[in-house]
Amino acid sequence: MSAGKVLVLMGSGSDWPVMKKCTEVLERLAISHDVHVASAHRTPQRVVELVEGASAAGSRVIVAGAGMAAHLAGVVAAHTTLPVLGVPLASGALQGVDALLSVSQMPPGIPVACLGIGSAGASNAGLLAAAILALDDEQLAQRLRQERRLQAQKVEQSDAELQQRR
Amino acid sequence: MSAGKVLVLMGSGSDWPVMKKCTEVLERLAISHDVHVASAHRTPQRVVELVEGASAAGSRVIVAGAGMAAHLAGVVAAHTTLPVLGVPLASGALQGVDALLSVSQMPPGIPVACLGIGSAGASNAGLLAAAILALDDEQLAQRLRQERRLQAQKVEQSDAELQQRR
Amino acid sequence: MSAGKVLVLMGSGSDWPVMKKCTEVLERLAISHDVHVASAHRTPQRVVELVEGASAAGSRVIVAGAGMAAHLAGVVAAHTTLPVLGVPLASGALQGVDALLSVSQMPPGIPVACLGIGSAGASNAGLLAAAILALDDEQLAQRLRQERRLQAQKVEQSDAELQQRR
Amino acid sequence: MSAGKVLVLMGSGSDWPVMKKCTEVLERLAISHDVHVASAHRTPQRVVELVEGASAAGSRVIVAGAGMAAHLAGVVAAHTTLPVLGVPLASGALQGVDALLSVSQMPPGIPVACLGIGSAGASNAGLLAAAILALDDEQLAQRLRQERRLQAQKVEQSDAELQQRR
Amino acid sequence: MSAGKVLVLMGSGSDWPVMKKCTEVLERLAISHDVHVASAHRTPQRVVELVEGASAAGSRVIVAGAGMAAHLAGVVAAHTTLPVLGVPLASGALQGVDALLSVSQMPPGIPVACLGIGSAGASNAGLLAAAILALDDEQLAQRLRQERRLQAQKVEQSDAELQQRR
Amino acid sequence: MSAGKVLVLMGSGSDWPVMKKCTEVLERLAISHDVHVASAHRTPQRVVELVEGASAAGSRVIVAGAGMAAHLAGVVAAHTTLPVLGVPLASGALQGVDALLSVSQMPPGIPVACLGIGSAGASNAGLLAAAILALDDEQLAQRLRQERRLQAQKVEQSDAELQQRR
Amino acid sequence: MSAGKVLVLMGSGSDWPVMKKCTEVLERLAISHDVHVASAHRTPQRVVELVEGASAAGSRVIVAGAGMAAHLAGVVAAHTTLPVLGVPLASGALQGVDALLSVSQMPPGIPVACLGIGSAGASNAGLLAAAILALDDEQLAQRLRQERRLQAQKVEQSDAELQQRR
Amino acid sequence: MSAGKVLVLMGSGSDWPVMKKCTEVLERLAISHDVHVASAHRTPQRVVELVEGASAAGSRVIVAGAGMAAHLAGVVAAHTTLPVLGVPLASGALQGVDALLSVSQMPPGIPVACLGIGSAGASNAGLLAAAILALDDEQLAQRLRQERRLQAQKVEQSDAELQQRR
Repeated sequence: MSAGKVLVLMGSGSDWPVMKKCTEVLERLAISHDVHVASAHRTPQRVVELVEGASAAGSRVIVAGAGMAAHLAGVVAAHTTLPVLGVPLASGALQGVDALLSVSQMPPGIPVACLGIGSAGASNAGLLAAAILALDDEQLAQRLRQERRLQAQKVEQSDAELQQRR
Repeated sequence: MSAGKVLVLMGSGSDWPVMKKCTEVLERLAISHDVHVASAHRTPQRVVELVEGASAAGSRVIVAGAGMAAHLAGVVAAHTTLPVLGVPLASGALQGVDALLSVSQMPPGIPVACLGIGSAGASNAGLLAAAILALDDEQLAQRLRQERRLQAQKVEQSDAELQQRR
Repeated sequence: MSAGKVLVLMGSGSDWPVMKKCTEVLERLAISHDVHVASAHRTPQRVVELVEGASAAGSRVIVAGAGMAAHLAGVVAAHTTLPVLGVPLASGALQGVDALLSVSQMPPGIPVACLGIGSAGASNAGLLAAAILALDDEQLAQRLRQERRLQAQKVEQSDAELQQRR
Repeated sequence: MSAGKVLVLMGSGSDWPVMKKCTEVLERLAISHDVHVASAHRTPQRVVELVEGASAAGSRVIVAGAGMAAHLAGVVAAHTTLPVLGVPLASGALQGVDALLSVSQMPPGIPVACLGIGSAGASNAGLLAAAILALDDEQLAQRLRQERRLQAQKVEQSDAELQQRR
Repeated sequence: MSAGKVLVLMGSGSDWPVMKKCTEVLERLAISHDVHVASAHRTPQRVVELVEGASAAGSRVIVAGAGMAAHLAGVVAAHTTLPVLGVPLASGALQGVDALLSVSQMPPGIPVACLGIGSAGASNAGLLAAAILALDDEQLAQRLRQERRLQAQKVEQSDAELQQRR
Repeated sequence: MSAGKVLVLMGSGSDWPVMKKCTEVLERLAISHDVHVASAHRTPQRVVELVEGASAAGSRVIVAGAGMAAHLAGVVAAHTTLPVLGVPLASGALQGVDALLSVSQMPPGIPVACLGIGSAGASNAGLLAAAILALDDEQLAQRLRQERRLQAQKVEQSDAELQQRR
Repeated sequence: MSAGKVLVLMGSGSDWPVMKKCTEVLERLAISHDVHVASAHRTPQRVVELVEGASAAGSRVIVAGAGMAAHLAGVVAAHTTLPVLGVPLASGALQGVDALLSVSQMPPGIPVACLGIGSAGASNAGLLAAAILALDDEQLAQRLRQERRLQAQKVEQSDAELQQRR
Repeated sequence: MSAGKVLVLMGSGSDWPVMKKCTEVLERLAISHDVHVASAHRTPQRVVELVEGASAAGSRVIVAGAGMAAHLAGVVAAHTTLPVLGVPLASGALQGVDALLSVSQMPPGIPVACLGIGSAGASNAGLLAAAILALDDEQLAQRLRQERRLQAQKVEQSDAELQQRR
């Protein structure tokens, strides 16, 4: 069995439009990855299987996105010592505040890296996974630095456009 | 194997002074119960064992108290169809707001009955467990109604004392 | 006089589109129930009549949904020792935070089981009522476990669809 | 039966140290009043009796202080068309935010005048009751304006002391 | 000079669609009133003129609606000992939480009666003003009790419709 | 009549221990200033007098610290076009969140510069006043830059101490 | 090299529709200014260049608008002793609460003047910049006072329209 | 020049008692590390020097703890593509909510891994750094798994003690 370097999980199929921002980053940086819908509450054993399977097959980072009570990242972290990145999603009435607290406020002993709420957090999860993988992949590190330069260029281009528009 | 009617779980030994308010209620109402420290994050398999074991042995209600990200009640609910009562505890910097949202904002499909934060919630979890068990235990139902009368008397006594003190 | 096993109350007719999620669950699980609009503030005596009448007629669980100050569940709980499940609804400017705190933060002595805000909470109230009733109804317990399996299958199906779409 | 002009209620005897700030204002302004401990949840019928009795006996304003879910003022308002002033108290983990929302966010139709959290709100409830009663009591109106002048003098005195201390 | 019994102020012309809920209640209850746009920040002297003028002309209650920092009710209260009712409005990014705190959390000495956020609070301000005026106007008191009965009937009608629809 | 360059106001004598952090900065930077207790609610005319008097006498910046509803800075800003710096103070149950929103969320047209809650905000108000005054006072500008260097040295010293302690 | 009196920065091109409210005020008051997109995170060196360049060229006030974590104003303030005005913007799930706290809660030593969230804050930043510049520009001071009179007239006009419409 | 695998930064010397929880974990797991006090606002260039120096010398993970506006982690992340772990600290009136939002809500493009508030987050930052470093250090991975077993044992021991105490 083989596996991608990053395992991307989400608690519901409806999370995919946001979590796709994560996989788009991984694709752009040429990082192999798997994506699964698995729920900490509705399919808890499937979550454990995926986490343990990915770890055994050599995956190195796990990203978990969920909304509301958002226990997924914490449950994943309970079953692995791989780095777990949690993305709080803005479903339900509270716009992601619930998920943000549920992902970030982990008790001492089981770390989860919490990213921002929603699509910003999802894409940053991809970049943080890349930063971790780049520690022993110099080519990826270069692509990541190139990504940063592109970001800077976009900001500079926005500035140039603003100068012209005014 | 035999088991109490109520299984009371808490995520950390430091939760005991608050969760004891729950077992004190159960004791006062003569409801058999077991109490265990088990962490959704640090001992996830132990949680599953306790939940499945209690269910198999005939326990009927599970109370789970935890602070901060407070995933315990949700993880318990994922492994049983028994009624699960969650008590958010006020540990850490956010005074239980994090735990309140993490316990109450469960996704559709896996219900958790969220009580109030801290000791008020812990004792109410005991009373709610009693209310559930009293549905087919008329003697317990009588004790529960008696408990209510005692509460009312305490309020009336407070009022009487206030009249005298002024 | 006869009554359904579950009494579902809501504070306003405008709450029905959300609270219907609760009765849909009860119908799917073949649990008899009654539904009424009754306001803790505008028709307080009607609330007491409904609660006491339902209790006398053999109802076993009461679900109360309300928004804003959301006193309904607490007022219901003050007049019965049956299990009371409160659903905070997201009406008004605060999107249900007010209702969530008002339902969950009950003082010690009068328990209310708080579910999540809005439709997720409404459907979970139905499932929690079922979990309580299933304690002495093995056929219902089986339907409830079947419901869980269906949920798991939906998650697995979402995962399968995600694998194909990518 | 006779009654004071203001009925001051509180949900628990432990609320007295804060609610006393209200009665101190009433005493200073020579406004007759009654004070009772009565709980919307533990003694709901007693609350109704007190409210209806006070109204029948000629009381004109009702002040209700409560913490946590703080349903007392709303329950009082449901049983009278007298002006009801609610004081949210800071008990429990959330420091009165729960009570503030529960008192202020009443649904349309049943008004409650919400004051600030804790002792500032309690003393202001006394002053607001006085402002209402002063509408047809010119002597009270004069005492109230005198109270304002005293407040202004205290601020001016604080300023004078500050000038000296520096 | 003559004046209505209630002076309704709002900080901006854009507040009128919400504050109209207040005057609609006053009109339904046949309470004379004046309505003005006046800003605590942009026309502070105009606010003082209106408040002092209304008081001199015999107005008895002042309602002040404002959004964001919402200082209007507090500024009004600083210039009168008449009862001041504050309505926090939901303008700007924070949906009225800012206005709610700014209206309710008055320092001890200068009371403001805070209603709920937005249109519910606006109509309740009208009802609370009526409750205050009804203390020495038995005909108004009767109209107010009739208003309550109509509210109750609407709830009962909603319930009847719900029974038919199901 | 002469006046200091900065007028420092606070709503209550009890605010002085925190607001002193502001005047300590002004003293260290040799900026003349006056300090007064004056309440937007209890002495509104005194506030206007102080603001208009200071402006007439040549004061250039006004700092206003207040807690809870914290209307002082907004009321000051309504009566001057001088720069107004508001310091939200952490009195009462909400620890300054109320004051922070009340100071920062000013409506368009009347600006207030909001600093942080409590003593950090008070000392920063002193520094911001200095930054404004330094625009046409090169000697002050130099003292301000020197202040920054001292701050940097303190951080470096903390770092040096940390290296030794470990 | 020459520079405008005010440097307006924003963290992203998408902030322009809101930050334009600031430059519109500056234009109306005939205050020269420059506007640039520069990100504290994506182009940190560009931010420093712009801040130091503006300071060297004689700019006197810097306005910085940003959303979410909103570090821009703080980073600007770290590199200048000019007055820095921060505008928290309402991007992302939290509607600007995150940005408001990140801009206002600066540590002691490095002041940032926080304005309100979004367009109200942006236009007020323009007015506050004007208030600062007017301290040694009497013509601008007059334009600023005239701006205030126009604001008051608009409020009075709203009031007049309201009187007619009713 | 040589450097530890982890660079631990904090914004103030007063953060050390909490951030020590991070270095204690690193020491227990035998991970080389450096610790420095450096402020994003008071010594911004020192922060850049430390970050670039550490990166050049082979450090692999950077932990940054700060309170209030808490810009440190974001500023660090702006100058490196190494994984940056941010620890929000509970200084000031808001108990770390401000820092939590400022650390977690980073804009897309510059990721920061946010841990929980205060000491729980500090120790988890140490564990997350270890998890990252363990990806290519099997001995560390074993120590990390052993750490987990010890945690589980402590929970089990707490449970055993609870059984005896009752």
